[in-house]
Amino acid sequence: MTSYTAPTKDMQFVLHDVLKASEQSIPGYDEMDRDFTGAVLGEAGKLAEEVLHPLNAVGDREGCHLENGVVRTPTGFREAFNKVREGGWTALDCDVEYGGQGLPYLMQTGVGEILSAANMAFNMYQGLTHGAYSAIYAHGTDAQKQTWLPKLTTCEWTGTMNLTEPHAGTDLGMMRTKAEPQEDGTYKITGQKIFISAGDHDMSDNIVHLVLAKIAGGPEGIKGVSLFIVPKILVDDDGNLGARNGVSVGKIEEKMGIHGNSTCVMNYDGATGYLLGQEHKGMRAMFTMMNEARLGVGLQGYAQAEVAYQNALAYALDRLQGRDVTGAKNADGPADPLIVHPDIRRNLMDQKSFVEGARAFTFWGANMIDRAHRTEDKDADGLISLLTPVIKGFLTDKGFEYATAAQQIYGGHGYIEEWGMSQFARDARIAMIYEGANGVQALDLVGRKLAQDGGKHVIAFFEMVKTFCKEHGEDEEMKGFVEPLKAASKDLQEAGMYFMQEGMKNPNAALSGSYDFMHMMGHVCLGLMWGRMAKAAQDGLQQDGADRDFLEAKIATGRYYMQRQLPATAMHLARIKTGPDTIMGLEPTAF
Amino acid sequence: MTSYTAPTKDMQFVLHDVLKASEQSIPGYDEMDRDFTGAVLGEAGKLAEEVLHPLNAVGDREGCHLENGVVRTPTGFREAFNKVREGGWTALDCDVEYGGQGLPYLMQTGVGEILSAANMAFNMYQGLTHGAYSAIYAHGTDAQKQTWLPKLTTCEWTGTMNLTEPHAGTDLGMMRTKAEPQEDGTYKITGQKIFISAGDHDMSDNIVHLVLAKIAGGPEGIKGVSLFIVPKILVDDDGNLGARNGVSVGKIEEKMGIHGNSTCVMNYDGATGYLLGQEHKGMRAMFTMMNEARLGVGLQGYAQAEVAYQNALAYALDRLQGRDVTGAKNADGPADPLIVHPDIRRNLMDQKSFVEGARAFTFWGANMIDRAHRTEDKDADGLISLLTPVIKGFLTDKGFEYATAAQQIYGGHGYIEEWGMSQFARDARIAMIYEGANGVQALDLVGRKLAQDGGKHVIAFFEMVKTFCKEHGEDEEMKGFVEPLKAASKDLQEAGMYFMQEGMKNPNAALSGSYDFMHMMGHVCLGLMWGRMAKAAQDGLQQDGADRDFLEAKIATGRYYMQRQLPATAMHLARIKTGPDTIMGLEPTAF
Repeated sequence: MTSYTAPTKDMQFVLHDVLKASEQSIPGYDEMDRDFTGAVLGEAGKLAEEVLHPLNAVGDREGCHLENGVVRTPTGFREAFNKVREGGWTALDCDVEYGGQGLPYLMQTGVGEILSAANMAFNMYQGLTHGAYSAIYAHGTDAQKQTWLPKLTTCEWTGTMNLTEPHAGTDLGMMRTKAEPQEDGTYKITGQKIFISAGDHDMSDNIVHLVLAKIAGGPEGIKGVSLFIVPKILVDDDGNLGARNGVSVGKIEEKMGIHGNSTCVMNYDGATGYLLGQEHKGMRAMFTMMNEARLGVGLQGYAQAEVAYQNALAYALDRLQGRDVTGAKNADGPADPLIVHPDIRRNLMDQKSFVEGARAFTFWGANMIDRAHRTEDKDADGLISLLTPVIKGFLTDKGFEYATAAQQIYGGHGYIEEWGMSQFARDARIAMIYEGANGVQALDLVGRKLAQDGGKHVIAFFEMVKTFCKEHGEDEEMKGFVEPLKAASKDLQEAGMYFMQEGMKNPNAALSGSYDFMHMMGHVCLGLMWGRMAKAAQDGLQQDGADRDFLEAKIATGRYYMQRQLPATAMHLARIKTGPDTIMGLEPTAF
Repeated sequence: MTSYTAPTKDMQFVLHDVLKASEQSIPGYDEMDRDFTGAVLGEAGKLAEEVLHPLNAVGDREGCHLENGVVRTPTGFREAFNKVREGGWTALDCDVEYGGQGLPYLMQTGVGEILSAANMAFNMYQGLTHGAYSAIYAHGTDAQKQTWLPKLTTCEWTGTMNLTEPHAGTDLGMMRTKAEPQEDGTYKITGQKIFISAGDHDMSDNIVHLVLAKIAGGPEGIKGVSLFIVPKILVDDDGNLGARNGVSVGKIEEKMGIHGNSTCVMNYDGATGYLLGQEHKGMRAMFTMMNEARLGVGLQGYAQAEVAYQNALAYALDRLQGRDVTGAKNADGPADPLIVHPDIRRNLMDQKSFVEGARAFTFWGANMIDRAHRTEDKDADGLISLLTPVIKGFLTDKGFEYATAAQQIYGGHGYIEEWGMSQFARDARIAMIYEGANGVQALDLVGRKLAQDGGKHVIAFFEMVKTFCKEHGEDEEMKGFVEPLKAASKDLQEAGMYFMQEGMKNPNAALSGSYDFMHMMGHVCLGLMWGRMAKAAQDGLQQDGADRDFLEAKIATGRYYMQRQLPATAMHLARIKTGPDTIMGLEPTAF
């Protein structure tokens, strides 16, 4: 019952009018001109609209099933995955040496939003594969790269990440999976891993599991963890598939959402594994992918809000209920469309202003990742490292909030599965949890990232905001953006100062405010992005043949965000400054 | 996997230490002493813990099924419903004349929280019956009362409410269901109704549908709507069941949650109906029940947050992950329990301080309803009429928010259905939608209730807050409650003034801020309740043999609410004062 249209015009605006991608001196960016990105996004949009989105509800309804040890994906998924492969959509930013197209991560991110919005559960199969690709690309030996990367690039083989165990989630140091060294240099992997997305399925010839395990005799805790490549089917030296490895699916989890993706309990029973990277440095290898993976999850959050918004908007324009209090807008009809009602409008504007801001923020983040990887820009690397928990935590919290808000527009129909709005909310919910629950993101931000490299990156962040405000502070047209951004940024700085002062005496003073801080910083980031979008729109309006309606709507939407969302920073600051006492005051037994 | 324990101690505290129920001069309240209410809540708790809660997951998993035109409820529901009937739990506040126990609505509300928290979907079967009882009790003829009420009191027959049609939800004036007068004084009802909770099932001998329909030739729109009693099985003059009426189930909806309750499409095909109340005054008859019904839905919201909180707390105390940054709390174990982490604690305190405040607010509301009904106190009636949309809208928004927050404590396990936390969130979601979507509640509050009777009730509300602040303003111990409450109330008043001034010129200025206003008012109400609870706890601490741990925890929890939640009012005020322009600025075509 739902539909999806790729928002290519909005994406092009961010890529070219805001980021001016093709003008940036980053290798590979020069070919990213408006025509090229337009063509890529347009084709991705077609695939998403015609092939992937129609399978979204099918995947939700049918789910994945374990039959005789093999996972069956929902009807149509195999054929669709073939189309994705054939179109080369799995290889956009992979190295040309391994069969990829070598495009910037920014291009991959734009396409990723489209595919993820259309069918989040489906797109995870290739998303996880991309993660495995990145880990092997960064840490593999040449031989390992030759063996695994070409097949991962094409998704002929897919990948997984195996971190969690039943008793060890965030606290990976407690893991029990063992790796026993063998004489031939391989390891025997034994243990159980849970929550393995795309852990098994029927859409590829092989599955390449990346598994964290402990080599006997290594250091205790997290420092003794190593990363292994453990294929479902063993591969000989010539790359031919051989015997089944000692890997099996224990069960498929019944989840709140993303039913189309198989979330498996994986059992490793003396499975052959190949060390990836150095012994006991498994966490480092995992963390290499973290910025990308977390940005990808933040993207899932707002992408679900985007598709939910599109459907809520269509419903609000179509559904007739009640009358505009200022005068009928559809006098000949039995009632006016929902969109005449101010509170419906408020709800839609909340969603719209969030999604567009989130897109700009995420694309900007992908741009920083390209800058870091392709030009070895340490400042860009520091900045994206600082803001990754914000992209992940803030965009998924809000993504779920607004997917739920979109569901509300449908009234009772929003609660009925047939109408499809429930699925967007249920699917979006996982993004707040996996890849580090959002509380852990807040802890990472406040407990680790703020002080990283002597606070250099957070200082650079504030400098970036300040520079923007200074550059446009005198511009009358930009007042409505600069003033609220300044105020919000001041709140954020004050919170940071509070953490520095109080956190020295009591670390809980900072950690108690971490969640509020993450949200504050999210608002400041979206405020900055809206400032940049407004400026780009105003510049655009000066040009001949400007798409005035589009650009004016952009500015109006930005104004909404600045006026109605940024005031949240003062609330978060007030909460933070109440300190840790009310939070830590009750003894655990007194709850 | 989940469990539930009735929070009888907290309930007793509200009933006796805060409301001092048995000291109030309301007929029936004198027998509500501590022992009596403790015994009733204790027995309800046993039923909830041992019979109803174990069926909560069963109902979610199995759902209801339509087989050969009859709805089958989940395994165990019939037996449980018999136990509820046998225990007299369906008749607590029904009139003794019709077999009820004649207890105050306040007592019914306390029991309602327990039953609803334990199994929301199950408890709706009797909840809807109670609604039908109330409508017939208020508007039925003596003969109608004799025929229907005794059976509804015992739930031998259950009831439903039929309002919505496929094209007419909130806008009931558009309804098409027809009622044709017959020569014998009955009507033939023809049409289709949707979203009928408990529309059909296998747990009672008959189902009494209350159906809104239009009598041909009556006024257009909402003014031509009448209410009818339409039984599933016709009843003869002696009360014996006879032939099937022309009522059938079209289908059962697949929903996001409350799977244990059958949500039906009901088809009326010339079904015999009996006019209830006056012709064309159907809406008035429906609205009689509205305050109670909406309070009951607000209760569902916080009751789901309560049971979710209980389970989140148990998990946080049990699950070992990471270490307390200020020093290990479980040094001999592999890690500390989750509850040592400040952000986990923040999350739990958010939930706890909300639920306890919401309970006090809801019990206070039930007390006002008793006062209005049993002593004809017009002021109480006005006050509860004003605050009903706040109870419904605010408590269900927050109830869902915190059920979701509780799910987050479980990390990945929160997303897996087997662990049960997803169900609490999915079930809670409907409460924001039905019985008037929350946006409609905000509209009712700002567009209707504020100005009702010349603004008399909102003035009385502010007077109530002011009186509390004045009485306790000099009390050093109460400063932490009175000051934040004053500030929040001032924000609310300022928003009200803004609406008065700007709303005259442009009604959208008020309506654009309606949702923020509803939330502000919710915070002020919970702040007032926390002030009263803190005062009661402080008084309690002066007494010999006081339960110090309990009372001190109450005060600490209240402090958390005042410091960490009340600052939200300033944000809502700031949003409201930005006016309608950013909300109404975009043309519908520019979205």
